[in-house]
Amino acid sequence: MNPLTFLRVLGPEPWNVAYVEPSIRPDDSRYGDNPNRLQRHTQFQVILKPDPGNSQDLFLHSLSAIGINVREHDIRFVEDNWESPVLGAWGLGWEVWMDGMEITQFTYFQQSGSLPLQPVSVEITYGLERILMSLQGVDHFKNIQYTEGITYGELFLENEKEMSAYYLEHADVNHIQKNFDDFEEEARSLLSLGLPIPAYDQVLKASHAFNILDSRGFVGVTERARYFGRMRSLARQCAQLWVETREKLGHPLGTYEEANLIYPHVSEKPSREEVQGQPRAFVLEIGTEELPPRDVVEATEQLEKSLVNTLEKRRLSHGKVHSYGTPRRLAIVVENLSTKQTEVEVEVRGPPVTKAFDQEGNPTKAAEGFCRKNNVSVDCLYRRIDGKTEYIYARVRESARFADEVLTEDIPTIVSGISFPKSMRWNSNIVFSRPIRWILALHGDFVVPFSFAGISSGNSSCGLRNSSVANFKGGGHKCGSTQGSRPPGLVETAESYLSAVGKAGLLIDMQERKEKVLRDSSILAKDVGGDFLAPDSLLQEVVNLVEAPVPILGQYDDSFLELPKDVLITVMQKHQKYFAVTSKSTGNLLPYFIAVANGAIKEEVVRRGNEAVLRARYEDAKFFYKMDTQKKFSEFRGQLSGILFHEKLGTMLDKMTRVENIVAELTLILGISETMIPIIKDAAALAMSDLATSIVTEFTSLAGIMARHYALRDGIPEEVAGSSFNVIAEALFEITLPRFSGDVFPRTDAGIVLAVADRLDSLVGLFGAGCQPSSTNDPFGLRRVSYGLVQILVENKKSFDLRRALTLMAEVQPIKIQSDVIDEYERGSSDLMSCDVVTERLSARSTIRHEETGTASGLTLTDISAFHVDEGINCEIVRSVLMERANCPYLAAQTATEMEAFSRTETFPKIVEAYSRPTRIIRGKEIESALEVDPSVFEKDEEKVLWCAYLEVADKIHPGVDIKTFTDASLLLIQPLEDFFNNVFVMAEDERIRNNRLALLRKIESLPKGIAELSVLPGF
Amino acid sequence: MNPLTFLRVLGPEPWNVAYVEPSIRPDDSRYGDNPNRLQRHTQFQVILKPDPGNSQDLFLHSLSAIGINVREHDIRFVEDNWESPVLGAWGLGWEVWMDGMEITQFTYFQQSGSLPLQPVSVEITYGLERILMSLQGVDHFKNIQYTEGITYGELFLENEKEMSAYYLEHADVNHIQKNFDDFEEEARSLLSLGLPIPAYDQVLKASHAFNILDSRGFVGVTERARYFGRMRSLARQCAQLWVETREKLGHPLGTYEEANLIYPHVSEKPSREEVQGQPRAFVLEIGTEELPPRDVVEATEQLEKSLVNTLEKRRLSHGKVHSYGTPRRLAIVVENLSTKQTEVEVEVRGPPVTKAFDQEGNPTKAAEGFCRKNNVSVDCLYRRIDGKTEYIYARVRESARFADEVLTEDIPTIVSGISFPKSMRWNSNIVFSRPIRWILALHGDFVVPFSFAGISSGNSSCGLRNSSVANFKGGGHKCGSTQGSRPPGLVETAESYLSAVGKAGLLIDMQERKEKVLRDSSILAKDVGGDFLAPDSLLQEVVNLVEAPVPILGQYDDSFLELPKDVLITVMQKHQKYFAVTSKSTGNLLPYFIAVANGAIKEEVVRRGNEAVLRARYEDAKFFYKMDTQKKFSEFRGQLSGILFHEKLGTMLDKMTRVENIVAELTLILGISETMIPIIKDAAALAMSDLATSIVTEFTSLAGIMARHYALRDGIPEEVAGSSFNVIAEALFEITLPRFSGDVFPRTDAGIVLAVADRLDSLVGLFGAGCQPSSTNDPFGLRRVSYGLVQILVENKKSFDLRRALTLMAEVQPIKIQSDVIDEYERGSSDLMSCDVVTERLSARSTIRHEETGTASGLTLTDISAFHVDEGINCEIVRSVLMERANCPYLAAQTATEMEAFSRTETFPKIVEAYSRPTRIIRGKEIESALEVDPSVFEKDEEKVLWCAYLEVADKIHPGVDIKTFTDASLLLIQPLEDFFNNVFVMAEDERIRNNRLALLRKIESLPKGIAELSVLPGF
Repeated sequence: MNPLTFLRVLGPEPWNVAYVEPSIRPDDSRYGDNPNRLQRHTQFQVILKPDPGNSQDLFLHSLSAIGINVREHDIRFVEDNWESPVLGAWGLGWEVWMDGMEITQFTYFQQSGSLPLQPVSVEITYGLERILMSLQGVDHFKNIQYTEGITYGELFLENEKEMSAYYLEHADVNHIQKNFDDFEEEARSLLSLGLPIPAYDQVLKASHAFNILDSRGFVGVTERARYFGRMRSLARQCAQLWVETREKLGHPLGTYEEANLIYPHVSEKPSREEVQGQPRAFVLEIGTEELPPRDVVEATEQLEKSLVNTLEKRRLSHGKVHSYGTPRRLAIVVENLSTKQTEVEVEVRGPPVTKAFDQEGNPTKAAEGFCRKNNVSVDCLYRRIDGKTEYIYARVRESARFADEVLTEDIPTIVSGISFPKSMRWNSNIVFSRPIRWILALHGDFVVPFSFAGISSGNSSCGLRNSSVANFKGGGHKCGSTQGSRPPGLVETAESYLSAVGKAGLLIDMQERKEKVLRDSSILAKDVGGDFLAPDSLLQEVVNLVEAPVPILGQYDDSFLELPKDVLITVMQKHQKYFAVTSKSTGNLLPYFIAVANGAIKEEVVRRGNEAVLRARYEDAKFFYKMDTQKKFSEFRGQLSGILFHEKLGTMLDKMTRVENIVAELTLILGISETMIPIIKDAAALAMSDLATSIVTEFTSLAGIMARHYALRDGIPEEVAGSSFNVIAEALFEITLPRFSGDVFPRTDAGIVLAVADRLDSLVGLFGAGCQPSSTNDPFGLRRVSYGLVQILVENKKSFDLRRALTLMAEVQPIKIQSDVIDEYERGSSDLMSCDVVTERLSARSTIRHEETGTASGLTLTDISAFHVDEGINCEIVRSVLMERANCPYLAAQTATEMEAFSRTETFPKIVEAYSRPTRIIRGKEIESALEVDPSVFEKDEEKVLWCAYLEVADKIHPGVDIKTFTDASLLLIQPLEDFFNNVFVMAEDERIRNNRLALLRKIESLPKGIAELSVLPGF
Repeated sequence: MNPLTFLRVLGPEPWNVAYVEPSIRPDDSRYGDNPNRLQRHTQFQVILKPDPGNSQDLFLHSLSAIGINVREHDIRFVEDNWESPVLGAWGLGWEVWMDGMEITQFTYFQQSGSLPLQPVSVEITYGLERILMSLQGVDHFKNIQYTEGITYGELFLENEKEMSAYYLEHADVNHIQKNFDDFEEEARSLLSLGLPIPAYDQVLKASHAFNILDSRGFVGVTERARYFGRMRSLARQCAQLWVETREKLGHPLGTYEEANLIYPHVSEKPSREEVQGQPRAFVLEIGTEELPPRDVVEATEQLEKSLVNTLEKRRLSHGKVHSYGTPRRLAIVVENLSTKQTEVEVEVRGPPVTKAFDQEGNPTKAAEGFCRKNNVSVDCLYRRIDGKTEYIYARVRESARFADEVLTEDIPTIVSGISFPKSMRWNSNIVFSRPIRWILALHGDFVVPFSFAGISSGNSSCGLRNSSVANFKGGGHKCGSTQGSRPPGLVETAESYLSAVGKAGLLIDMQERKEKVLRDSSILAKDVGGDFLAPDSLLQEVVNLVEAPVPILGQYDDSFLELPKDVLITVMQKHQKYFAVTSKSTGNLLPYFIAVANGAIKEEVVRRGNEAVLRARYEDAKFFYKMDTQKKFSEFRGQLSGILFHEKLGTMLDKMTRVENIVAELTLILGISETMIPIIKDAAALAMSDLATSIVTEFTSLAGIMARHYALRDGIPEEVAGSSFNVIAEALFEITLPRFSGDVFPRTDAGIVLAVADRLDSLVGLFGAGCQPSSTNDPFGLRRVSYGLVQILVENKKSFDLRRALTLMAEVQPIKIQSDVIDEYERGSSDLMSCDVVTERLSARSTIRHEETGTASGLTLTDISAFHVDEGINCEIVRSVLMERANCPYLAAQTATEMEAFSRTETFPKIVEAYSRPTRIIRGKEIESALEVDPSVFEKDEEKVLWCAYLEVADKIHPGVDIKTFTDASLLLIQPLEDFFNNVFVMAEDERIRNNRLALLRKIESLPKGIAELSVLPGF
């Protein structure tokens, strides 16, 4: 937040700076008890602008420089995409872990003040206390030797205690809220005066005020988003003004120079003759800075697919294709790739015949040009009609080019074609998941020369981070390791690639890594009489966080086992990527964990480090759990009054009171038995109270889980006899479901009612408070709320009158909800129905998720149509159904699914076409609404037949009808309509006749009402 | 203000720390225009606790270390006693000047958080920008090379511009005032919770808020004191709590050790035989860190006086005595001091005779012991009655001790007896003006051995700071110079002392220094055709700022001559201690100045440095003057509404409006011609408006002067024809008089009325608002205001009904002034009448002056009685007079002066005694107040005679009568009273007679009413 960072990363001026900064985080207040968490710690912050291209390298060298043996420790770059919703800033990068402890944040800034950054800056922030603890081998910050004879604790422990008391207990919330408003107003006024620097100063004050409010537990999920929005808006204006100011000043610090792209060194290209001959293996290795685990998997697949396609298209024959991926490399090996393309003849179209020959039938210059270009003689030309014109054509023999020539052209396109959920720029406009630092491309003995993202392809690779550098003559790239041996380094031939990486200790095959992890972990767990828990997603992640997995068994104090299992496991899995170890006999947790280190580290050092980190984390959890269990869970309910939900909508207590008040009626709307109401009300009276507990404040992902835990711990009565679990406790968990994409849904009646009620309240209230999402912005995550609501209803097959529920919810809101708000909510849904918006939204999802970092409930955007599109249903069909059945999401879902199926039949298009003619005729005509069909006015038989058919169809169609019934019935109309239009002139002179005919058509047109809006379908 | 300074200097824990701090001073905002003044500059702050004893030395070495050639530059320690009224902190020390530019503040902290410090800490704060400018030879901060290719201006100029605009123009005063209140409340609540650290954090916020209000020109003199008081109270509580906390924690950083006192090295003492012989010279040189100029003068005098007295008392004969003083040494040379005391016989009293001899007349053990002790035989005893007892006596020959033996004992007492207006502690409990760092004490060839303040006497001295160190074998002290030669160093004999210091280039004789300064300056001025202005006080100061004066002529750009002369001269004299240079022909200023450097500096370097400093100062003044002269002076009146006088009493505009409204009536009360009223009102309408000008905001000492200047500049009409000056303009100046002790007084009628009105308003208003001074505290400087008022009236011989004026003033106050407030003001005066309080107050004056640093008007404390005591009048007399005549200060002053004269006559004590008897008789008796003397009730002649005498005297005495008349008249009572008391029994049985006699005595007792309260005089 330092202005020398925030403002200086904007614009084109180079900027390289480093400073020691006290970093104040009220939320990290621990009274000095926690070993490595402090409300004030010290960061060494570095900005490198533009990206120098070897910043990871520089960083690792800096660690060596301060005395860290980077070959003994397990130093890892773990995906962590920094973003500051306050500053409208984000970047991609990593937490740097040393033996499981985060010691540094490493980020390629992509945006700041809501402005894209050009050039990109690298920010490296070292956590000095943690590094010092490691260097000095002490297990608590207070034991750090600050200087000779003085410890950190002697200097700062009292400060931690007192400031913690201030931030957690005593800061005056009223003052600070007022101050926040003052700072905001002051900032705004300074912005209007064109003064970004003092304005930004006010933003910083506001931000600190917010942080204090937050640590005092005063900010609810929704209110948080509002605060963020207010600050972000100011920060954006500061940034814009600053950029303008620097432009006006003519960029006094100069303008950065685009990184020089290195072009392929053609001189080393082998002569054509040399590469003639036997097919050879081809290997492509793209060396990167550490990719996020999921990107490793996806990019490997894409790369293989794309390369195979290209080889196919380019007529390059080959043998088997193998793809590999690690965090630092995507590799593909093609066996027996031919050195030359297969020859082929193609037909090429020339100019029209009229242009190709003159009136005498002699070839014109155009024809001659065409022949010259394609190296054919005029004699070979032939003619053919294409559409309405006759052209000349020729058969052209495509030259068989050398494989390396073709690949030189194509590989850059293949690589740039790999897509990632989130990409970044570094030193050019190329985007990729993380910066590319080397490229190995060998066909047999020879380098396939090309360049991409400023990197030239070569024949060398890099080993493990903690092994040697392999900086080869032709390479020119830097690998980021610091010393020593074991390089794959120069790879002599494509065929030797796999053995070279193998010798370097790399396991580039994902499956092999997975097997090693499982095998070794299993042995380690068995040694202590246990099994290990490796859920698929965690295993997949761990496997793709390393290039050479080394599972290590660590231990923690068994006194921590008194903590809830969920807490222990969450910390291990989510925070530390460890496998928990359970007893083979009882299945209970054992005080062990398995960390998977990377490469040839010193195990004892790494184990000790990881144990220390876990201990600190558990101390933290223990601290919170102790605080929480000092009272009964029901007592936390009252504390919800200290968490603001939204300024206009009151606190979380107000919200949950509304939920409590509505559940009875909602139970009935959802068609659930009345007898459940008392139980559901009991659950509603406890639900979400865990938001006020310390554990959930700290480990937000445990919301719901802790409610269930604390409720069971307090021994709440099991009101439903014969149930296999405590229904109330379960509902306390289920109200939070679904928490994320792919999560489970509530399944108990009580859980469904609570989850629906909570989401309805958010939607109605926040729409009423003016917090509607826009197409690009949804700070309150209302789309996800809406989406979750839809999913719950659909998954549980609950028919449901959405409008009735919304209206009901509107009545209990503290602000007047105009009925147009509910309309707007529905309109909002229909706005989203166009495919464009949905697509945009889907792509925007990851961005928006960022803005919600730290929210307690983990909800993100959603909406009804998104649900259907996600289910693989054509978006026109979704739109069509939703225009009529949005009010009942489950019904709409069923309808859409059916219609999707029917749309592939022959019948359905006919039905659509059938309804289209009457609709097109009456559309735009002013037809008196009272006009009814009068059979006595019919003149022609076709009218009468159609009328009868209508009556028959109408009889079969009712609200809620399924698509099959509707389609079958509508078939009856097809012939009568055909006949009608062939023989009856609708717009007759006689007004009475004309009106009667229009009335008839209107009747037919309105048959699909309540089922689907057919006019948006293709073929209508 | 860093808590690591403010809190850590408290208590006994050692603390040595250095940090780079951004120092934000909103008041120094200059939009980046000023060469070396920034709203944010960078300090390198050092705390050394306890004082290591050689901190000046360490400091000078640090300057060398960063590349400053300390032998070329004129580096000076110029008295500057830092204090922070906000923090209740102060210390004695210096600004360190390099070629006239302040580059460092050097302070021995004496108090912090209103607590005395033990041990004392040394604080050194380097001004990095200024040092950098000098090192890099650039003339504007923006040209400093920050790093290769980047200037300071490129980095920070925009920041200066924008932040200046914020602090000077845009900061929202309402918000910031509210914030201040919030911070204060939060601090208070945290203090009540026992949390000094977060409380202090709030104090810092409050302080910054105050600074912004101040830079926005929103804080008036009085309001400032109130703000300071609020913050100081918080800071004190923080400090107290912190100290308690550290005690509870058992002082984790340990406890400092008292500096080891070095005891005299007796081994080197010459044998008695050796020193026998001829009288030899004696020299005592006390080497110190730089003394304030006035202390040099006073301490030299005291030292000489005290030593001469001691020699006398100790029977050491000697020749001429010479004393010398420079900022770094007090020296005294005694010619021909005898080596031994003159012999003498004294009479010593023994035990009473009854105890000394037994019944047989034999000496007892007591007598024997007495004889043994005094080395006399029993035969020599003789008897004498002393009081009512007979004692034995003996004539004892006092031994003639060696001079060095005697001096060894006495010199520490002599030195510790030197008193200073302001003393400090450093590493022990000894107090002195500044730390003593060496002592030379030679009698002939021999060191007179003793130790004082941890320093042993020796035979070596130190040279100029920028010459060599003279660290001699026996010396052990460090002199603070850095390298090279030219030591006086070892001084062989006392006789050679003067030639040694002379050879070292020191001019230790003040008169010689003065003559050199005048002589050289005169030559320099003549060179450019000018004279130089050296007012006595400046000359005296300059002479005592150096040990070897080197006047240097510098030049400034003559474009600055367009600034008012007063501004130019104020800057030169007050800020820079320069002599201004005027044209010999016109008397106008020439663009030159004379700076007096110290010692063998490199003139060219020093001249350039001083010129740069003056240029920066003049740029500053020009900036302000330009701002001011953009509008007419009368327009500033309105801006007084932006300066708060006092929360309850409104703004300065309100105050001056009150003054304007009262001047007409006050003119009449002061006995000034009614015809003056329109002029005085015109003046009142402009008075004090210069407080809103930028020049006065910056150069507070120019208040009044600038009002006169701007008024004349605008060409206000000269309303009084024939006057030699503009009466209105002069009154605008005179309203500020007297500004300090020893200042001139207003002399024009208009000036007197305004000055009196302004002071009355302050007194009445602030007493009414509850801001009465206490005996130890007078934050609003009301004593000085009151004192000034008295001085004005007395000096101008204005009879004046104070109570009437106060009542009048009370009526125009915005708050209701109860009549008891005026009583209280008078009581306040009478409280102060006791000599104790006055004495205390006088000694407290310098302390309290500190608290007002930076006030705009420069007023300090005073009161009526102080005036008289200051005039040298016995305080009982003052008290006596004031008890009756305080209401008219001038009359009281006259009366006191007369009474002082009369009190030395024979008559006066008789008068006092005469009045005392009637008073003592009636005092304590309940005498009906209506009781009148009834001559028909007289029984005795003595009564009748006394009654007649009374009537005669009463006829001569009237209110306002002078003391001579009163005394002469009262003489008539003496004999009748004598006779009355000898012959009349007052308390007669007959009630009527008794009451009549009491009534008569009461009449007499009340004769001095309205003249003086005689009962407080001695002899009453």
